[in-house]
Order: sequence, then C-alpha cells, then structure tokens
Amino acid sequence: MIIILKPSATKKEAKEIIGQIESLGLKPLFMPGTERTVLGAIGDERVIASLHLESHPLVERITPILTPYKLVSRELHPKNSVVKIGSVPVGGKRFIVIAGPCAVENREQMLSTAQAVKESGAHCLRGGAYKPRSSPYSFQGLGVKGLHILNDATEKTGLPAVTEVVEAGDVATVARWAAAFQVGARNMQNFRLLTKLGQSRKPVILKRGMAASVEDLLLAAEYIMSEGNQNVILCERGIRTFETATRNTLDLNSIPYIKQHSHLPVIVDPSHGTGVRDYVAPMAKAAVACGADGILIEVHIDPKTALSDGHQSLNPEQFTVLMKELRPFVEAAGRKL
Amino acid sequence: MIIILKPSATKKEAKEIIGQIESLGLKPLFMPGTERTVLGAIGDERVIASLHLESHPLVERITPILTPYKLVSRELHPKNSVVKIGSVPVGGKRFIVIAGPCAVENREQMLSTAQAVKESGAHCLRGGAYKPRSSPYSFQGLGVKGLHILNDATEKTGLPAVTEVVEAGDVATVARWAAAFQVGARNMQNFRLLTKLGQSRKPVILKRGMAASVEDLLLAAEYIMSEGNQNVILCERGIRTFETATRNTLDLNSIPYIKQHSHLPVIVDPSHGTGVRDYVAPMAKAAVACGADGILIEVHIDPKTALSDGHQSLNPEQFTVLMKELRPFVEAAGRKL
Amino acid sequence: MIIILKPSATKKEAKEIIGQIESLGLKPLFMPGTERTVLGAIGDERVIASLHLESHPLVERITPILTPYKLVSRELHPKNSVVKIGSVPVGGKRFIVIAGPCAVENREQMLSTAQAVKESGAHCLRGGAYKPRSSPYSFQGLGVKGLHILNDATEKTGLPAVTEVVEAGDVATVARWAAAFQVGARNMQNFRLLTKLGQSRKPVILKRGMAASVEDLLLAAEYIMSEGNQNVILCERGIRTFETATRNTLDLNSIPYIKQHSHLPVIVDPSHGTGVRDYVAPMAKAAVACGADGILIEVHIDPKTALSDGHQSLNPEQFTVLMKELRPFVEAAGRKL
Amino acid sequence: MIIILKPSATKKEAKEIIGQIESLGLKPLFMPGTERTVLGAIGDERVIASLHLESHPLVERITPILTPYKLVSRELHPKNSVVKIGSVPVGGKRFIVIAGPCAVENREQMLSTAQAVKESGAHCLRGGAYKPRSSPYSFQGLGVKGLHILNDATEKTGLPAVTEVVEAGDVATVARWAAAFQVGARNMQNFRLLTKLGQSRKPVILKRGMAASVEDLLLAAEYIMSEGNQNVILCERGIRTFETATRNTLDLNSIPYIKQHSHLPVIVDPSHGTGVRDYVAPMAKAAVACGADGILIEVHIDPKTALSDGHQSLNPEQFTVLMKELRPFVEAAGRKL
Repeated sequence: MIIILKPSATKKEAKEIIGQIESLGLKPLFMPGTERTVLGAIGDERVIASLHLESHPLVERITPILTPYKLVSRELHPKNSVVKIGSVPVGGKRFIVIAGPCAVENREQMLSTAQAVKESGAHCLRGGAYKPRSSPYSFQGLGVKGLHILNDATEKTGLPAVTEVVEAGDVATVARWAAAFQVGARNMQNFRLLTKLGQSRKPVILKRGMAASVEDLLLAAEYIMSEGNQNVILCERGIRTFETATRNTLDLNSIPYIKQHSHLPVIVDPSHGTGVRDYVAPMAKAAVACGADGILIEVHIDPKTALSDGHQSLNPEQFTVLMKELRPFVEAAGRKL
Repeated sequence: MIIILKPSATKKEAKEIIGQIESLGLKPLFMPGTERTVLGAIGDERVIASLHLESHPLVERITPILTPYKLVSRELHPKNSVVKIGSVPVGGKRFIVIAGPCAVENREQMLSTAQAVKESGAHCLRGGAYKPRSSPYSFQGLGVKGLHILNDATEKTGLPAVTEVVEAGDVATVARWAAAFQVGARNMQNFRLLTKLGQSRKPVILKRGMAASVEDLLLAAEYIMSEGNQNVILCERGIRTFETATRNTLDLNSIPYIKQHSHLPVIVDPSHGTGVRDYVAPMAKAAVACGADGILIEVHIDPKTALSDGHQSLNPEQFTVLMKELRPFVEAAGRKL
Repeated sequence: MIIILKPSATKKEAKEIIGQIESLGLKPLFMPGTERTVLGAIGDERVIASLHLESHPLVERITPILTPYKLVSRELHPKNSVVKIGSVPVGGKRFIVIAGPCAVENREQMLSTAQAVKESGAHCLRGGAYKPRSSPYSFQGLGVKGLHILNDATEKTGLPAVTEVVEAGDVATVARWAAAFQVGARNMQNFRLLTKLGQSRKPVILKRGMAASVEDLLLAAEYIMSEGNQNVILCERGIRTFETATRNTLDLNSIPYIKQHSHLPVIVDPSHGTGVRDYVAPMAKAAVACGADGILIEVHIDPKTALSDGHQSLNPEQFTVLMKELRPFVEAAGRKL
Repeated sequence: MIIILKPSATKKEAKEIIGQIESLGLKPLFMPGTERTVLGAIGDERVIASLHLESHPLVERITPILTPYKLVSRELHPKNSVVKIGSVPVGGKRFIVIAGPCAVENREQMLSTAQAVKESGAHCLRGGAYKPRSSPYSFQGLGVKGLHILNDATEKTGLPAVTEVVEAGDVATVARWAAAFQVGARNMQNFRLLTKLGQSRKPVILKRGMAASVEDLLLAAEYIMSEGNQNVILCERGIRTFETATRNTLDLNSIPYIKQHSHLPVIVDPSHGTGVRDYVAPMAKAAVACGADGILIEVHIDPKTALSDGHQSLNPEQFTVLMKELRPFVEAAGRKL
C-alpha cells in the first residue's frame, strides 16, 4: 500500500504512521520527496486496512498495490474454473446458451417456450418466478408456483433451469426447484443474500449491478466464495450511462478484463444489455467473439403478449435463426456450441 | 399514452391496436401522419400498461403522459407532507439535522458522539448496526448489539435514532429499537424490503440508489406508500458518474425536482455525497439553499480511528462549526434550525 | 410532434397554440384528457421547431415523432452507403483495417510501422500530425511536417492515410496530404470544423464524442452532409462512464443501432475504446461480430517508446496475430478481410 | 511517481527502469514486495512523463504523486485570484451575477433585456453571437452583427459583456467587441482555441465540458495560463450522467474541490446546469452557499419566443425575484451582492 501524505505532514508525523505500520508486523517504507512524503507498507493489505489510514487527517491519498479480492483472482488460481449447472459445464470448451422467458407466466407459456429453445439447441432454461420490478403496479412473478412450473419444464426437456432469487429467506426454496440461482443486477450488493448463497453449493449466476464497476462485481463474487461456494458464474448485462438509445450500455470490455483478472466463467445477457430485440443477435455474436463463456437470452413463445420485457424477447423462430448464425462465430472462437 | 407506430404499420394494424385500447374501456385517438401514424389512449395509464404495447412489433415508441407513481405525487396531494421521527417533524418549518457515526462501533464511541452532537444542536441521531460493505473483509457492524447501544444513546440524549435496515427479516427487530428506518442506496430497489417497510408505520428514510434516477426513487417510495406507510422521507446521497474527484456526484438538482413533483420531505447526505470531510460543510449549506428539509451528517468522536467512512466524518468540533455556519443559511431560507 | 400541456393549461390557451401550429400550414390535433391535454402537429418537425414550444410556460413536455436528422437517416436512403478512402471502399463486403501509430513521431517510426502493417494486411494507414492532448505539457504532434511524413508512408506502401484535423483553418492543408480526415472525439461538436469538412469531398471519419449519445453523433454527421459532403464514416471509440477499469466504455450497442437508423458505414476503434493493449484483439473481433464495417487500430514499431498511447498500441507482431485471428470472425460475418 | 510492476517483472528488469529514472537526474526508489515490486521516482513528474513508463509492458500501473497542473494550482499560489471583467472583479468579496439572453437575437431583444437585468442589479451581461448547436437546422447566431449589438448594450447600460468564442480565428474579432471570452462546454478541449486565448489578456470564462472531470477542467485552464493569460474564470455548468430529469447534472461538489485545489475564481451556470426554469433560482442559491464566486443566468425579455434555451430562461420579473431572494444567502456567505 502506497500512502501519500499531505504537504503539511511533518517528518515526526510520518514517523508515527510508520510506527503504526510496524506495529502490525508489516514492513514500512519512507520516501521523503520535495513536495510530498510518500510511505509504503509491504504485506497483506487487508491487515493494513485495519489502520484506516484513509481517515487520517494528514493522508492525502492511498493507492493499494494488490487487488481487494483474493479467491476470485486469477493470481492464486491461474486456470479457468468450470462451473456446472446440472450437468452443463460453463467455462469450458462449449459455449453455453441459457434461454427462456423473462418471467414464468403460466404452465403453457413456460413449457412451450422450453420445448422450443431445446429444439433450437439451448443448453439450459431461464425463467423468473420472483420478479423485481421498478413499479409496484407491475407484474411481480408467480412465486413458488412459478418454481414448480419451471421444474416441470426441466423434467419435460431435460434442460437444467436458472432462476432469480431475491432474498436470503428464499434461498432454500429456490435451491429445491432450480439447478442454479441467478442474482439480479439490483441485488448484486445485497450482501445478506450473497452470504446465504455462499453457504449453498448450487451454482450462482451473479449479474453486474447497473452502477457496479467490474471490481465491485468481483468483490461481490468474493462474498459468495468466501463463504465456501466456489460455483460462481459472472454475468455482464449492461450498465447505466447517459446513453438512452438502448436500455443499458453493454460493457463488453468487461469480458477480457474479467478473463485477465479472474478464473471464474463469465456470460453475457444481450437481452437486458440492449433492451431491443433487433440488437440481441449482433451483441450475442460480439459476446462470443470477445471471449465470453455463454449467453443468457430472453425467448418468449409470443413476445407481443409477454407480461414483462416483451420488447427485448426473441420469438422461437428468431431464436432458431440466432443459434444458426451464432455457430460460425463460436467455431471462429475455437469453441463448440 | 402516446403510441408512435413504425412506418411499416398499415391502417388495418393501427385499427387493431385501437380495438385493444377500446376493449379496456379507454378512449383511443387516431392521428395518421405523412411518415408515421400516432395513436393515443386517454385514461388510466396503469390500465393501458396491461396491453404491453411496448412489446408490439409495430410499435416504435411509447410516451407516457402521466407519471408512473401516484401516492408520492404532488398532483393528488398538493401540500407538503410532514413526517415525524419520534417527536421531530421533518418537512416543516424546521431544518432537521440528523448526526452521528457511520457505524455503531462500541458503547463509548456511540454515547460520546451522541452527547456531542446533541450539545451542538442536532435533532436526531444516526448510527449503523448493520453495515453493507463492498468487501467481505470489511467491518460489517455489531448487529443487534449495535441496536441496543443506539437505543441507550437515545435514552441518554433524548434524540430519536435512525438506523439502516438491510433485510425484510430484520424489520421487526430494528423497529423495536430505533425511531426510523434507513434504506441504503444499495437497497433502494430491494422490493421485498420496501414492501415489508410499507407494512410498518415507522418512518422510512429512503436513500437514492447510485444508479437510480429521481423517478426511480419516487417509484421506490411508491412501493412503501402503496402498502400503507405514508411516512417516507427521501434522501439524496449522490449518484455514480464518471467524476472520481469526489466519492459520488451529489445531484442537488434532484431537490427542486422532487419538491415540484412530490409532497414528501427530502433530505441530503453530504457525507456520502462528497466522501471528503472538507466538502461536507459547503454542501450542507447548498442543501439548505436549494430547498432540502434536512441533512444527514456523519460525525465521529475520533474520525482517525473510525472503522468506516472516517475520511468523510466530521469530528465534534467541526460539527459544532458547521451548525454555527449553517444557521444564517437556514434563516435565509426562511426556516429555523 | 406531440405536445403535452401542463394540467393548468385552459382550453383557450390550448386553442391559441393550435392557432400557431395552423399558421405554419401544419395540421394540428387536439386531444383533451382527464388529467392533461395533449396536442399534436403533423408535418415537418423542423418547421414546428421554429415555434419553440418547449419554451412555452404551459407546455410540460414535447415528444418528437421524427428523427432530427434526415440525410444520415436510413429511411430516405435504405441502402448501405459505401465511402471510399483512396481506392479502399468502406461499408461494402470487405472488412477494413486502418492501422498505424497514434502520432507520427519521426520518419523512421512512421515508415517502418507503415511497412509492417501493410505486410500484415492492413488496408489503410493512420497517424496523427496534430494531437489534441489534455495537458499542455504533453507532445502535441509534428504538424505539417508530420503530414509530409505520412504522405511519404503512403507513397512507399500504397496505403491511403487517415489523419486528424483539429481546426477549420487546417482543412485545406490536411486535404492536400491525406486521403481522409479524422475528427476526434473532442471535436465531434466543433461545428465550424464540421461545416468546413462538409465543403470538402474527401471522406471524413467522425469519431463519437466522450459524452455524445449516438443521436448526437448522427446529428454531427448531418452537419457535414448538409453542406454537401456525403462521404462520412462514423466511428465508435468508447464513451465516458463511471467504469475506470478501462480507459473508456466501448459502446458496441451503437453499431446495430447505427446500422438500423443510418446508411453510413461505421467502424470501431478498440485501441481508444479499451485503452489496454491486451483487450484490443478481443474487442476488434467483437466489432466484426456485431456488424461494424472496419476497425481503427493503433500499432507502433516499439510501443514502449511511444510518445503517446503506447499502453494501448500493438507492436507489429501482435498486429500480425490479430489479423490472423480476425479472419475467421470476418468470414463468420459473411465478409472478407 | 509510484510505479507498480507486474508480478512477472524480474529484479533485473526493475533495475533497468531504475536506471532510466536515474538517467533523468531523478531519485529512484526500489521497494520489493512479496507479490509486486514497487518503484518510486522523486522529482518533477513532467520530466518522468517523458519516459512513458505507462507504455512499458512490465508496468502494471502508475500513480502520480503531484497534480498534472501547476499554474492553476493553489499550492504555488495560495491566495485567491481576482479576475476583472471590465471593471467588475470576480473572485473577491462581491458575488457576481452575469445575466442576459442565451443568444443575441436582435437589437430590441438584447437592449431591453440588458436594461432589465441592469435594473435588477446584474453586474455583467451575457449574450451569444456564435451559437454551437447540436443540429445544423437550429439557429446559429448572428455572428459579428450580434457582437455589435452586444457592444451597444454595454454602451447603453455600462455593463461589461461576456460572449462565446468558438474558433481560434474569431478571437481577435470577439476581443474587439466584448469584455470577456466564454469558452463553451463543447470547446473546453479545443486546444487551438485555448492556446490562442492564452495569448490574449482578456478574461476567459472556461466552462466545464459535459464529459470533463474537474481535473480535465483545471488542465484546460493550464493551457490558457501556460500561454501567459492569467485571467481565467472557471465555470461549472453540469455534466452528462444517466439522469434525464434535468438537462445536465449540476456538479456543485466541484466548487469546494476547485476552491481547495486552485486559486482561480469559479462561477456556476444554473440555467444550463438544470435546463428547467423553475430550478434556476434554487440552484443559484445553492451555488452561493457552497462557495461559488458568481453565477451566469439566462434572462430573456420574452422566453416564450426565444430562439434557443427559452425553457431555461427567466423573464425579467423572475430575475428580479431571484436577485431579491439571493441577497440573504449572499450575506449568509459573508459576501455582498
């Protein structure tokens, strides 16, 4: 950790801080300069953090040397992790497609959509039973009944299902009926929920929050892993910027960044990332091209009647076309679909 | 609601949509143009929303005429609401100062800080028992023990206390020990929590999320009010932008916007809004000047040793100076401190 | 144009505005509602704009029906435009690679880089003679001398060159030595410069501004085209957001958006869009995959000694690898390299 | 400057970089750690910058210790600067109000507005002759004719006038007719223009760009000052964020930040900063409260007919009310109006 002192800090005050660093068993460094004195502390930065030097009135700025996360980092775990959703491995040679409706609306809608995406080659299902919605007057999901329908869809198609969990208290119920948890963007920093999911062993698809930096996303994953659950899949789904032409700004730069800094698999959600049906296919291809391990796609048997997100859902025919068009890009990336 | 059709929509297709609008008992409007056909639907927009016209393949864009919220809106409730924290009215003539540490760290720290802010004229206490932190390796708060200490501080000083609640399951416990709930930025769209708080009658200070527009904040308040709890206080605490010179970008524009669109009281948190101790006082004064009803200020008996947010906490002397300097601005605003 | 009146507007006042609309020869529409009156005006929105109704005290909000641009729009020009840089067509079947150093630093550096990128298969050269830099103490480019060197590089390799122009007064000089102008992000709304470039017939690569929405970019292109120059190539190079892990946030969503709304070719600059050498190749592939017509890549013969942008420049070996890896993605997109 | 090396850097490579630092006559520091080696370089960071270490393949990250600007910095110039527009001092005890229309539209409009704002107590006039507009189809200003009218307004009222300059080539002309230059947000990084203005001695009001950090603004001011013109006034006018409820997000945090880091005067433009007439007065008061030295206000004799920005312009009555309401806040700030 590099500690830059204010110009007004005296040598005596610098020595005091050095003393504090030494008292923690760390190696201090003293670098007096013409305009600023700079201190260093070599050792575990999480230990140094306990000094709260950023609150010190004579400290101008602090620069960490190490990343604040550990278990998600590629430094200690250089090989790619593969996380299994049911029997489907995410993060390996196969590019994974998870498809289905935004929300489970009824048995007929879920089962027919599941059947359709299976026929086109999807590997897993998606479908929300608990829907966080900006307005209290919007459709909020079917709850447990939705989970049962989702489970039926898995039994009928053999595709494992991913579904959103919005509260720590629901973790056990969701775990019973689904193959993987999804944490939505609004809950990426719901730390109670993350902690609870860390105590499970089921895989967690962790979506990036709308105002979350990639580092925040990696730290949120660290919450889950630090409780013991190593089965985390990260998901880029767009961030909030000044651009309103699309629902969100899909930050694909995050894919090579995550691949460089973490061993965890990462997938992309071009449905939320664009919010526009016509842009889902091009951005799905871009996701393959920049190194993502899979995609999460909203498909609805009849988007025009969807209770949520219809404008960004593909119908089964469009999804079939997407799967066909995706293949050469997946092969160009040296993977298989 | 204004519905702009794509150029490819035929007259027949427009008529079909008009039929759907009529079938809901609403009044449709048909405006054929040279390049686009525009439709209108007059009536309750929440009813029209059930048509999900935004998902219709022939609809280019939809423009709502009415706001999506109702209970928080000033239109139906033109007079300012006053919400009481204990016996302290927020939203009336008095400008309210809520002060205290970021987190309750121990009895001595909380009680001495409480005593100090009381002496300088604060009206309410703040102090976190449950702390949502970006890193799993940071201090997470004392939990129930922190609530007990906070309650002791109230008993000793007579100042009602505000504290953060992070999960629906904690609402009853927090309600027992504190005078008001605080919902943090990361939980502004934790709809389960909002719904639960709506079933309480204790006041809720609802902080704006880092990626939340003011409209999102008003919709989140609508969640609480639609469950029956009218005691909502909004709080501007800064949003996330490209500017990194300060921790957040304090969006004071939101204050006159909220005052114009809602009857709810609104306060400002310049501690999180700037993240820099030296900028807290100027921005507190700016908050008074642009029409806020109060401020939320972090004060720590010894910021240098604070377990969180020390860099943005005032010490008791600085807080005393702030209170003194604030007074003429409060009077300029025609209010009292 | 849809005009939503404030609730306080009377019928008489609405009629007055209708009179103004009619006086311009446009067809007005009157839609009284229960909570708001809505007016419409059918006809050329650029004519209606002259009424400045957005300034009217009784107008709450205005929603345009048509796009504010015309010449760049695909509606009036459904087929893709192909713009030629020298003899190289951009926007056709071939995916175009423009490569070279950030800045022309000296003859040796420029010529050897040009030779290297040619050998690896680049179609055009890039190299800045006038460099806009955030700090007055940074290298500002060689000016006219740089243009001469660039021209020599073209003569030696046969590759046409693109170079930045920063001021209307330099347009004639740059036109003499380069095959295409580049307008940098900081100048995207330098309307004097755009107007001057509109009077040339040389192609213009117009880069998106850091705070510019895609609509702003299209409007800036309209400035050039409305002066008569149809040879505009748009360029996505990243926008400024809260994310600091990368230099900019490359907004690839803009590619399908532009393709849908405009007939102009669009290329991507992954060097500035990421600011990190290791992410250039993955994002170049993503650009192909989502439909871009080409890329702009910074290559330096020895990035470690580059006077600017060395951290995001590829060396010739890395560029050769990129070209090789790009090919299967270009073919997957049904194009050729 | 702190240089953090990649984990893969060997001791030998670190020594090489140290050699380069020494070769510039600077003092190097070597701090080997368990996971990373950190180097330091003590001395003028502008000299070290010439090494372009950020481009070095073994360098992970660089942290400057000093600010990149010098002349604008308060460190070398601890006292507040006072800049005179005509005879009006900005940055001293008096809080300065600069008022007038967005654009000079015609003689009658400019002169009557000038007379009105003078009567209400404005200290300077504003009025644009050259208007940068997003669309080529919008009113672009009267040009030189507008400058003549503005000059007439100054002669009639005695108030010095501020007007925008959009190109280096116009500097001489504008200097002849106006008391101060204004550089608009879109031109904050038009470095040719800044350089030219640096060669003048007339004051420059430099507006913050929509995507510019406060540090970028200070660096842009450094451009002007490094050419010899010390008469720079900074202006906060809002930045572009995801919030669309207001035209821009007025970042008042920048005021205490600038006051702490620079000696230059800083004013606020609440008209552009909000884009909404009703929010101009509250934000003008907030500007006083947080320490700004003045405000820039759009006033139009008849906003309803304004050719630009009518929705954010005050009429003379509203401006009179603002001046009256502003006074107690100015006094609370210990200044005079």
